[in-house]
Amino acid sequence: MSKELTIGLVGFGCVGSGLYEVLNQSNLIDATIKTIVVKDREKERSLPKERFSFDVKDIFEDESINTVIELINDSDAALDIVKQALESGRNVVSANKKLIAEYLDELLEIAKRNNVSFLYEGAVAGSIPIIRNLEEYYNNDSVTSVEGIVNGTTNYILTKSNDGIGYEQALKDAQDLGFAELNPTLDVDGFDSKYKLVLLLKHAFGITVNPSSLLNSGIRKISEREVAYANEKGYRIKLFSRAEKVGNKVVAFVAPHFVESSHFAYSVDNEFNAVVVAGLFSDQQLFIGKGAGSYPTASAVLSDVSALKFNYKYEYRKTIENSNLSYSEDFFVRVYVGSSYIESINEIPFYKVDELFQSDKYSFQTGWVHFSDISNIDFNNREQISLVVLPDPLRLAEDFESKSKDGNYQEFEHVAFS
Amino acid sequence: MSKELTIGLVGFGCVGSGLYEVLNQSNLIDATIKTIVVKDREKERSLPKERFSFDVKDIFEDESINTVIELINDSDAALDIVKQALESGRNVVSANKKLIAEYLDELLEIAKRNNVSFLYEGAVAGSIPIIRNLEEYYNNDSVTSVEGIVNGTTNYILTKSNDGIGYEQALKDAQDLGFAELNPTLDVDGFDSKYKLVLLLKHAFGITVNPSSLLNSGIRKISEREVAYANEKGYRIKLFSRAEKVGNKVVAFVAPHFVESSHFAYSVDNEFNAVVVAGLFSDQQLFIGKGAGSYPTASAVLSDVSALKFNYKYEYRKTIENSNLSYSEDFFVRVYVGSSYIESINEIPFYKVDELFQSDKYSFQTGWVHFSDISNIDFNNREQISLVVLPDPLRLAEDFESKSKDGNYQEFEHVAFS
Repeated sequence: MSKELTIGLVGFGCVGSGLYEVLNQSNLIDATIKTIVVKDREKERSLPKERFSFDVKDIFEDESINTVIELINDSDAALDIVKQALESGRNVVSANKKLIAEYLDELLEIAKRNNVSFLYEGAVAGSIPIIRNLEEYYNNDSVTSVEGIVNGTTNYILTKSNDGIGYEQALKDAQDLGFAELNPTLDVDGFDSKYKLVLLLKHAFGITVNPSSLLNSGIRKISEREVAYANEKGYRIKLFSRAEKVGNKVVAFVAPHFVESSHFAYSVDNEFNAVVVAGLFSDQQLFIGKGAGSYPTASAVLSDVSALKFNYKYEYRKTIENSNLSYSEDFFVRVYVGSSYIESINEIPFYKVDELFQSDKYSFQTGWVHFSDISNIDFNNREQISLVVLPDPLRLAEDFESKSKDGNYQEFEHVAFS
Repeated sequence: MSKELTIGLVGFGCVGSGLYEVLNQSNLIDATIKTIVVKDREKERSLPKERFSFDVKDIFEDESINTVIELINDSDAALDIVKQALESGRNVVSANKKLIAEYLDELLEIAKRNNVSFLYEGAVAGSIPIIRNLEEYYNNDSVTSVEGIVNGTTNYILTKSNDGIGYEQALKDAQDLGFAELNPTLDVDGFDSKYKLVLLLKHAFGITVNPSSLLNSGIRKISEREVAYANEKGYRIKLFSRAEKVGNKVVAFVAPHFVESSHFAYSVDNEFNAVVVAGLFSDQQLFIGKGAGSYPTASAVLSDVSALKFNYKYEYRKTIENSNLSYSEDFFVRVYVGSSYIESINEIPFYKVDELFQSDKYSFQTGWVHFSDISNIDFNNREQISLVVLPDPLRLAEDFESKSKDGNYQEFEHVAFS
């Protein structure tokens, strides 16, 4: 049953070189990295120059290579390589969340047609085996929500922010430590978290959502004002990728959240990732691990390689069975919106206002918004607006109405300050 | 590929009735519970009497039943049922840790010979998918340690103890809440934790250890003295099932541990379970979930049933590959030993003493002991002795010697007070 793996590795950065070490220095798995393809001929690397090749042809023209591991940054180039590898009947392991989030269904079709495996545990939450668990253990439709901190860079920055260090300084610290890129947009604006959310949606609920249609509101606007609000209420701020069933629909978004101390993720700090899976009957399970870095991600890739030896494939059972589930923006979420300008707050269409604080320097408002009213707002680039989601459960319109009959909630108030 | 499951359920207690509800009321899985066998004819149950059968023959003589789910307390009766089910070519799901810990290799042989599945995720840590993860995701030999809180009853009691409530009161509270049995020995003396540890040893390291040869020191002797020591040092006390590689051997035991605030398990309270898996390259991953109760355990059983539909079997790859690994007691562990009598402490053979506190009423000593010197002591029933393991890593003899050359540690001192 166990199969000889001869590997072509594309990319020798942080994760690629980590994988090389892990595979070659430990004899953990009987697999050989035969060819390593890199782009830059001049770059200093930990192995002698002769060990590298500079053309992927060297992999594709080598009949003995049956497995391609793709670990490069450039997702356009990666797309070509992964497609060609699958088409040529080779198994592929990738950790490229952007590529996979954008082209998953197309790649799956190619993999299926060629009867090969396409595995990508390393693409989500580093060393946490979340894809495998959603695929194998939570393989019936009992999952009700998946919510997590899946980006180590932003969690590191937010941990510092929660401790009173300003965003700019925290970002600089993260860059100095190698956690954040010089251009941190992908991380801090929540794009990375969103690509991962797309993969979680696929494996938790069986639905395909184009990343461009999901809201990603990041952490650049989290200031000492939001931290002060959090401290006052006993919250901490965490960037969540969140997917859950609300009624018979699936909702999903990336946004900073105020988190109560009773929440599993409250004390998950620094570069750690955490994913909470809730089921109809299984209550909640929490998975914590290092979300980034050479070895943690390499070990996820290694586990995929190890699974290939036994011809493991994702089955996407939920995709087949749950074809009736669909993505929806028809729900209400309770949010905090802060700004130096009350006018900016008033542009956000609140359905019901719970608190309004106004001063010369800073204002904020909390209350319920209908998600479809805010899902198209580019909070990352909108001047002077901070959005943070409050801990209340998401609601459907009927939840408000039915609850209000019991007198538990007020009726909607459409509020517009002017 | 998907297979019709017709189930014979043996046992309709907390987990069995939970499973019935989950399976029948939710249409999560296309599987039918055809026959339910129970022992007590008179007991009031949530289903009408006609629904029950009182003889397992009704399962074994029914050719249409291809799956047996065994959820009874009596492990001797369970052994017969499981054996007969496997021998008759039926798949078996069980949550009976005592049975499995004591007879696993024998049962596996029968399952293998009859080419059927024997799954038991519900036997360890309730809703946490730890067996599946060890089996599938950590399927190479990179796991270096598995350590966890796998008994909800004792964790509940210790949580109260850490909060200053005495053992007797905490136990009573746990009993009132239904967390603890009237005869709590299996839980509080660490037997339940030990059975689970045997299963973790099998799936993490591929080794079979007879439960009777493993130390289980429980929590009955944890008094306000130990809690005071913990508070003074900033520790909390947790009952750990612990298995790890020390050198090229595997060590394992169940004992109360002082846990530092930086440890993953520090804030895992009440009936929650937590398991930390550490790998050579993957750092640490933490899994948290509810460890007991009707639905959490039933959902683990459900996930096994769901896997049966796809003919899933545990592969025990590590058992095959790691035949060179063996269980060892040849290591040193740093412990706290407390007692009202200094004589009782002096009976414990310390290799090196770090602290000694003596008073009229209570004394304690901390330091290093060689595990084989204490592994045969019945701490649960030894008068007047509390054992708690300190947070220091376990050590081999050569660790002491090599470290002492650097001046980091003192040489061994064989100490005997008289």
